Amino acid sequence: MKAEIDNRNESLADKQAFTEIFLTPQNNDTKVVLRKYMEQILFGLQDFLKKHVGITHEIPLEDLSCRFSNTLINRNPEKKLEQVFTELIEEIAPHAVNVASPYFIGHMTSAIPFFMVHLKTIVAALNQNIVKLETSKGASLVEKQVLAKIHRLIYCKSDTFYNTHVQNVHTALGAFTSDGTTANLMALWVARNALFAPKPGFEGVEKEGLTASYRFYGIGRAVVLVSRLGHYSLNKAGGILGIGNRNVIPVDVDSNNRMDIDALRRTIQAIKRSNGRTQILAIVGIAGATETGTIDPLRKLGEICALHNVHFHVDAAWGGPTLVSEKYRHLLDGIKLADSVSIDGHKQFYLPMSCGMVYFKNPFSMDTVAYYADYINRPGSADLGIKSIAGSREATSLILDSALKIMGTDGYARLIDHGIETAGQFAEEIRKRPLFQLITNPELNILTYRICSMEVQRKLASGGTEERKAINEGLNEINRVVQRLQRKAGRSFVSRTIIKMGATQEKEDIVVFRSVIMNPMTTIEILREVLDEQEEIYRRTFTSPVALYEYGRRIENGLPSDRIPSPGLHPEIIELDNCLN
Amino acid sequence: MKAEIDNRNESLADKQAFTEIFLTPQNNDTKVVLRKYMEQILFGLQDFLKKHVGITHEIPLEDLSCRFSNTLINRNPEKKLEQVFTELIEEIAPHAVNVASPYFIGHMTSAIPFFMVHLKTIVAALNQNIVKLETSKGASLVEKQVLAKIHRLIYCKSDTFYNTHVQNVHTALGAFTSDGTTANLMALWVARNALFAPKPGFEGVEKEGLTASYRFYGIGRAVVLVSRLGHYSLNKAGGILGIGNRNVIPVDVDSNNRMDIDALRRTIQAIKRSNGRTQILAIVGIAGATETGTIDPLRKLGEICALHNVHFHVDAAWGGPTLVSEKYRHLLDGIKLADSVSIDGHKQFYLPMSCGMVYFKNPFSMDTVAYYADYINRPGSADLGIKSIAGSREATSLILDSALKIMGTDGYARLIDHGIETAGQFAEEIRKRPLFQLITNPELNILTYRICSMEVQRKLASGGTEERKAINEGLNEINRVVQRLQRKAGRSFVSRTIIKMGATQEKEDIVVFRSVIMNPMTTIEILREVLDEQEEIYRRTFTSPVALYEYGRRIENGLPSDRIPSPGLHPEIIELDNCLN
Repeated sequence: MKAEIDNRNESLADKQAFTEIFLTPQNNDTKVVLRKYMEQILFGLQDFLKKHVGITHEIPLEDLSCRFSNTLINRNPEKKLEQVFTELIEEIAPHAVNVASPYFIGHMTSAIPFFMVHLKTIVAALNQNIVKLETSKGASLVEKQVLAKIHRLIYCKSDTFYNTHVQNVHTALGAFTSDGTTANLMALWVARNALFAPKPGFEGVEKEGLTASYRFYGIGRAVVLVSRLGHYSLNKAGGILGIGNRNVIPVDVDSNNRMDIDALRRTIQAIKRSNGRTQILAIVGIAGATETGTIDPLRKLGEICALHNVHFHVDAAWGGPTLVSEKYRHLLDGIKLADSVSIDGHKQFYLPMSCGMVYFKNPFSMDTVAYYADYINRPGSADLGIKSIAGSREATSLILDSALKIMGTDGYARLIDHGIETAGQFAEEIRKRPLFQLITNPELNILTYRICSMEVQRKLASGGTEERKAINEGLNEINRVVQRLQRKAGRSFVSRTIIKMGATQEKEDIVVFRSVIMNPMTTIEILREVLDEQEEIYRRTFTSPVALYEYGRRIENGLPSDRIPSPGLHPEIIELDNCLN
Repeated sequence: MKAEIDNRNESLADKQAFTEIFLTPQNNDTKVVLRKYMEQILFGLQDFLKKHVGITHEIPLEDLSCRFSNTLINRNPEKKLEQVFTELIEEIAPHAVNVASPYFIGHMTSAIPFFMVHLKTIVAALNQNIVKLETSKGASLVEKQVLAKIHRLIYCKSDTFYNTHVQNVHTALGAFTSDGTTANLMALWVARNALFAPKPGFEGVEKEGLTASYRFYGIGRAVVLVSRLGHYSLNKAGGILGIGNRNVIPVDVDSNNRMDIDALRRTIQAIKRSNGRTQILAIVGIAGATETGTIDPLRKLGEICALHNVHFHVDAAWGGPTLVSEKYRHLLDGIKLADSVSIDGHKQFYLPMSCGMVYFKNPFSMDTVAYYADYINRPGSADLGIKSIAGSREATSLILDSALKIMGTDGYARLIDHGIETAGQFAEEIRKRPLFQLITNPELNILTYRICSMEVQRKLASGGTEERKAINEGLNEINRVVQRLQRKAGRSFVSRTIIKMGATQEKEDIVVFRSVIMNPMTTIEILREVLDEQEEIYRRTFTSPVALYEYGRRIENGLPSDRIPSPGLHPEIIELDNCLN
């Protein structure tokens, strides 16, 4: 009897605790704090970010790390709910990166429209799980619908086609994935399974594995061909899928950073000479290369793939949304020849992290990756988890669908056009300034450039191979240093990458600034300020005009590049945090 | 000159448009609508869901599909912003599934604490991209910290260990993934790469591919061993990784639905007889089987794996958080022997969709899946995208970290304990009722049962094989029908799966109700109502007491099971929507 009463009391205590946790803030202090922050976020997002989030805060990473080193979970609540929120906003958020700043032009992450946060809130509140109709119902229908909308944007098939497939439980026009990497993985997964399809006496690669497939089909190697500017996720996909990432073969690019069609043809011819021992699993065209924003000649690639009966994948994770722009969609001419296309929602559809998508021309392509289970995903059901890399998934499609309704293609086109045109202005500005050299011209809204004065450019043009190499090594170090110092200062952020340059076979690695113009608040005036700051950092750091050349010689002579300051190198760079390299 | 002025006007128009889109609702109507819904969601979540979301709404899927069939994206905004939100809440949400209802006990998706929605809102507003320190900084540090906290919960290593690794840029204790499926994929990816590691003359499977690996290591087949109750994501991982999903070999379970250790030993012995031609890539133990909630004998499995030097993975996507419960953590005894462990945050950590995690005992395990790129993820950097399946990712770790602070392990333990204990009461109630048969006893908070009266149970016990088979087929159909009708009615939801039953080798497929008790508002009183409803549906649908047996005979005689009503079958079931099968 005693035990029963205790149980009942405990159960009452539980009930109260659960109510407080699950239902609504009981405590007025909690409400006040939550309401304040939610109001700031939902109705003053940009101000909130400006106030609470740094671009990169001044505290070095190592010092900051120490604050996040406790690894014990408290048994009792560590703090009151409102204190946890206050700490999150006042102490953790300031060390996040204000990717929404118009001065943040270094990566493909940027400001998002304020209403995206509202939409994400609704999706979180509904907490649907798209793996299964029983945990999503209407949201699964919206997902199929929005997949059809974007499919139509890419492939422009007929009304009949879309009416047949939009809500067809037996076919799939595409899938949502967590991001572009998994979208590319899914595309190549499907392509691999199509190449090694079941035949009499063979149950297909998905079931029997790659070794059995190679044996059955009598091949020794399957390869993916992609421009050497291809995203590293394609290599990763090659590794995961078991073909080996060294069989993701980089094809050279032309002087415009587009896949060199002649080089591709030569590669294909070489493969053909293997008498079928090597098979091409897919050829990948890029629509918006990560580092240069350039677009491969998609139509030609599509024709070549058709000729050789090879899966044609287009990685349009970045450039895909350009299709909404009447003015610039021609840049993606030929995309509809693709067997599959990746597009990221969290990039140029301006959705919050994370939203990847992959589309297939043939609504039956994804059949080769279908998986079933008794308790969900039964054959013939409308469960979207059947053809998907992930299982449980949130209803990101609701955000994209609402955003498309709110913005219209024209609303999105304004953003796309602004990015492309502002990047064009930026390129012009860089060309005008004597200290800088434009390295890759923006085809979309990404460009690269470096510090390399007219004088040095002339030296490079006239010098011999050895001299050029030495100068470039010096320039590389200088650009690396300036980029780090600018990032460290925290006013603006341009990223850094390596571009291969040179007309001959022996291309050199050139360190460049990489700029991605996707924030509509990023104007040419702001971009001028970014350049001004880089000039200022450069002049402050490298004091002597001959230092460039001198510095290059030193590196060539085998001195460690970032430990010994050159005659013109400010000691500040020695303190640079190497973690943030 | 004219063109310039036009440009300037256009640019002004753009600027205004961008301001409206990105900054804050300019229009008062918009503000009023957004504020209303956000207030309802953020400060009255459960009421909001009760009011706006159905369990499964009465409209059949096919009728509903028609409403989501337009595949054109409007050029201009389709509706005003506030109208899109109103439509989302008033017209789309009602057809979502109220997974938060205490009567929704069918899947591993449930109510979440209201503050999770606030946290998700903050994460969306910050829009950090964890792929790279430059787009996340502090959030990456929090991620490493919370990974260490959960690692510690699993592995209980020393302070020194955690101090060494918590913020170490060269090591990784685990990774966030989109869900449990990708967590399992990542674990087996790492295990595959460890099995086929680089050696002199061989650069490893990730680079060279599987066929080259099999050749170099002289093997013909790599297999994964898992109980036949293993999640289907393990088969999928086998398919994706190229070993072939038929090489994910199901091991039989004992009468308690735990992996049968003798069966496992026999399988291992058979593999050993291949003289190394077949290699075991991993043995997987389940901590909370999807269909039965049962836990494999983890300690024994760990010992066997150690003996044979095989990667031991534990799929604790469901049961992992049981570790917070002082009372029940012993059920997972032996988990610390695992080389890798999957845990889902969106399951029993009650996070919003989607949050998967995978942990590795050895902080260097993930080195085998590292990928680098010049513009991000440079070697030696702290970028978390280096060792990850996905690239771009949202900062889900901020939600888990805050939730752990708010709840403490004891707060979570209350939820875990409630689920396990309520499931126990439910099992008792099922045993008491003459119409039902408990099929799998709950070890955690999942159980299965079916409609099978005492009378029929006796028939089954005394009848011959043929008779038993016929009766079971009839029962299967009856349980399938009752489950569908209950779902269709929309008051409560219990899921349905197939369990293999029988002591002999020839096991029978038994259709069962599957119940997952994770919602703290789900009490035994509610569960009684769910059973009452099932009894009521059954009695209404199957009118004659002999109908059970008769119905079974009919199916056995080859009549189509769901088209011809049995003598006792109500015509209603013929109308059942087959899409919702």
